[in-house]
Amino acid sequence: MKTKIPHRIYLTEDQIPKQWYNLRADMKEQAAPLINPATGRPAALEDLYPVFCEDLAKQEMDDETRYFDIPEEVLDIYKIYRPSPLCRAYNLEKALDTPAKIYYKFEGNNTSGSHKLNSAVAQAYYAGKEGLKGVTTETGAGQWGTALSEACSYFGLDLEVYMVKVSFQQKPFRKDIMKTFGAKVFASPSERTEAGRRILAEDPDNSGSLGCAISEAVERAVTSDGYKYVLGSVLNQVVLHQSVIGLESKTAMELCDEYPDIVIGCAGGGSNLGGLIAPFMQDKLTGKSDPRFIAVEPASCPSLTRGVYRYDFCDTGKITPMAKMYTLGCTFKPSANHAGGLRYHGMSPILSKLYHDGYMEAVAYEQTKVFEAAVQFAKLETILPAPESAHAIRAAIDEALKCRQTGEAKTILFGLTGTGYFDMTAYAAYNEGNMNDYIPSDEELKPAIEALPKIPGIQE
Amino acid sequence: MKTKIPHRIYLTEDQIPKQWYNLRADMKEQAAPLINPATGRPAALEDLYPVFCEDLAKQEMDDETRYFDIPEEVLDIYKIYRPSPLCRAYNLEKALDTPAKIYYKFEGNNTSGSHKLNSAVAQAYYAGKEGLKGVTTETGAGQWGTALSEACSYFGLDLEVYMVKVSFQQKPFRKDIMKTFGAKVFASPSERTEAGRRILAEDPDNSGSLGCAISEAVERAVTSDGYKYVLGSVLNQVVLHQSVIGLESKTAMELCDEYPDIVIGCAGGGSNLGGLIAPFMQDKLTGKSDPRFIAVEPASCPSLTRGVYRYDFCDTGKITPMAKMYTLGCTFKPSANHAGGLRYHGMSPILSKLYHDGYMEAVAYEQTKVFEAAVQFAKLETILPAPESAHAIRAAIDEALKCRQTGEAKTILFGLTGTGYFDMTAYAAYNEGNMNDYIPSDEELKPAIEALPKIPGIQE
Repeated sequence: MKTKIPHRIYLTEDQIPKQWYNLRADMKEQAAPLINPATGRPAALEDLYPVFCEDLAKQEMDDETRYFDIPEEVLDIYKIYRPSPLCRAYNLEKALDTPAKIYYKFEGNNTSGSHKLNSAVAQAYYAGKEGLKGVTTETGAGQWGTALSEACSYFGLDLEVYMVKVSFQQKPFRKDIMKTFGAKVFASPSERTEAGRRILAEDPDNSGSLGCAISEAVERAVTSDGYKYVLGSVLNQVVLHQSVIGLESKTAMELCDEYPDIVIGCAGGGSNLGGLIAPFMQDKLTGKSDPRFIAVEPASCPSLTRGVYRYDFCDTGKITPMAKMYTLGCTFKPSANHAGGLRYHGMSPILSKLYHDGYMEAVAYEQTKVFEAAVQFAKLETILPAPESAHAIRAAIDEALKCRQTGEAKTILFGLTGTGYFDMTAYAAYNEGNMNDYIPSDEELKPAIEALPKIPGIQE
Repeated sequence: MKTKIPHRIYLTEDQIPKQWYNLRADMKEQAAPLINPATGRPAALEDLYPVFCEDLAKQEMDDETRYFDIPEEVLDIYKIYRPSPLCRAYNLEKALDTPAKIYYKFEGNNTSGSHKLNSAVAQAYYAGKEGLKGVTTETGAGQWGTALSEACSYFGLDLEVYMVKVSFQQKPFRKDIMKTFGAKVFASPSERTEAGRRILAEDPDNSGSLGCAISEAVERAVTSDGYKYVLGSVLNQVVLHQSVIGLESKTAMELCDEYPDIVIGCAGGGSNLGGLIAPFMQDKLTGKSDPRFIAVEPASCPSLTRGVYRYDFCDTGKITPMAKMYTLGCTFKPSANHAGGLRYHGMSPILSKLYHDGYMEAVAYEQTKVFEAAVQFAKLETILPAPESAHAIRAAIDEALKCRQTGEAKTILFGLTGTGYFDMTAYAAYNEGNMNDYIPSDEELKPAIEALPKIPGIQE
């Protein structure tokens, strides 16, 4: 019993990573460069400065520096809520009667309730360092907005949050927690921006999308003195910051003499998945090991499994740079009935490239199956997962069940990105049997994909 | 820097206490015995069996056994969410510019969001061991109900929760999380019991009280086959189970070579405070040390600071045994405007006795001051506290500010019992300046105190 791995493995404060790991430094081929829509040519570093903080823009463009020092001021906050626990799901294993060993990295142990704080703190720090008055951002389910309002409050920055309208309505308390930290929160599309007004003129009942909220936040940032824009996923810089998840996971597993055969994460914009897999993918890219990586997405917003690998705008209003990524088209709007987050039309260019090159798999689930997994997990492991995280739980359970069939004692690691305290409307719908398993038809996906931008000489 | 105490001190799984500590074994004088209202004489062990599980009734009545072994099945669940972190509030210290060292034991790191799970798991285990079909309980703010629904789901027990109506309405998502774990939840007073119907007949708009919800839950338990009643605070058994909080705190502080000069906890029924102070109070009772203990209660429900030390019923319907405790009278109903939990009319008989004998202090705060402390803490320490916990934060801040005046570097330990994710209605009211600081007048307190029960030969 002495050597039994504990239920929760906590690293010490000293073991919090001192550097972020930049996965791009080890990729055989780089993701395609961002394209400046004004020129139709690859964006230069300076092209990003009007929108992004300079230090963050540099991180965004840097595919050579393998490790970035985490600033002391950021580490000081990481120390308040990190290291996050790596948990062994003994109860889940037992209930599934599987020989598989299931681990999860739990990132919900902070007020924001999710992993988003890891990048929020970094971005707010750099914004403060640049002397900005404040930042603007979008939020979907509200995890990013909550995390950023915490971080901005800490560094004394103003914050404007554009929150996808359907989430704003489904999760009224999310805006209250952001306001508690001093943020201003607006339902998007709003009347505060050109982009919002244009969308509302066409469709007054528009329930919003992440792409639309991004347009509004970027527009506000570039038209307001002393403000820049920050984003909670998709970008390379965010995947970089989130590498703390994977680095801590790897250290903790090494302490237990373990290494994952399968690493699983939910994928909306890709920040959690990219961060979790980073050091394990490094091993795979450098030939040290060969784990499987599985991205899990909702069947109602299936960018990897049913999207195309093309250049697209990051926002609906088409004012951001264009990124080559798996996308459903920036005008795609996920069903308002979809409760489980992960509603972004595109996917991190880094993850898109790795997926395209065969380093990673992807799977999509309907939400009833996702909530079944969420409730099973909650009852066994005493954590109520965020619906987003529950996508990863679903896939982990299914892989563990395959092991029961084959008798293989595989080691599974998944990312438990956050808690579901603000998602009770969705849980109530599930409890009452009112979950909607809408899957868009090929016909429904077609218009947004056909409307992808044309870039002379690059994408016809 | 090597020897600096980390922001969060995590014990290892091996350091989770294997035994609960029974504070009564070290008390110079015992609290007065429970009185059976049917006989007007001290209750015998057997008198409790119709209501309480037998093992729990034994724990309730035992003031001699110093340590109780924690059953393996209970430890197995503790291992999923314990040890809870002991945190050093460096940021708060810095913001207050105080020489005081501030520590808090954070019990919100589990789905129930509070310390209540520590006793819920124990009580559900014993109920299952006794072969019961299920249990009934009451819940006020909802933390206990949530914790118990988790515990019952784990041990396969049915659960009926009577939730104080005003909380049921203010916190709609609390019932959804309990339902997710399979509990049945009813707003109290309800039409399901004699006690509830009687109260509704007199006052159809009655917004409920813990005392009333207890009456309903007890009535349902004694009139349903295979059911018994469990309670989340006040009782000796609950203080016993909650001793894990104090035991872990003491071990963690010893590792840091620290010992508290002041221990502070919020006090509703007293379970968290009793558990937190237990091993330190042992030191005080046995002459090993002399820390101060401060119970913090809301000014709108001030049982210790403005109540009387008399025998009273634990419930409004007057069907439970009578306990000698600080009480506002079992017919006292706290203002519906009070958002911060801690709405019980009485107080743990153990804590009441210690307070009466001068081992503990008490202080009461109005809720605006409590929420000010909550928001200040949230911004600095990245945890959004439950309003209940914020009472302790308020007192800890005030003690730290006194240290700034005197220059004393006192060591303060307070209990951060839980998170405020389900209390956003109250935070929104605070954010919007709509917090109500109602304090009952002496005249308003008088009727319930004058209506205290008379017990021939014991209390006239």
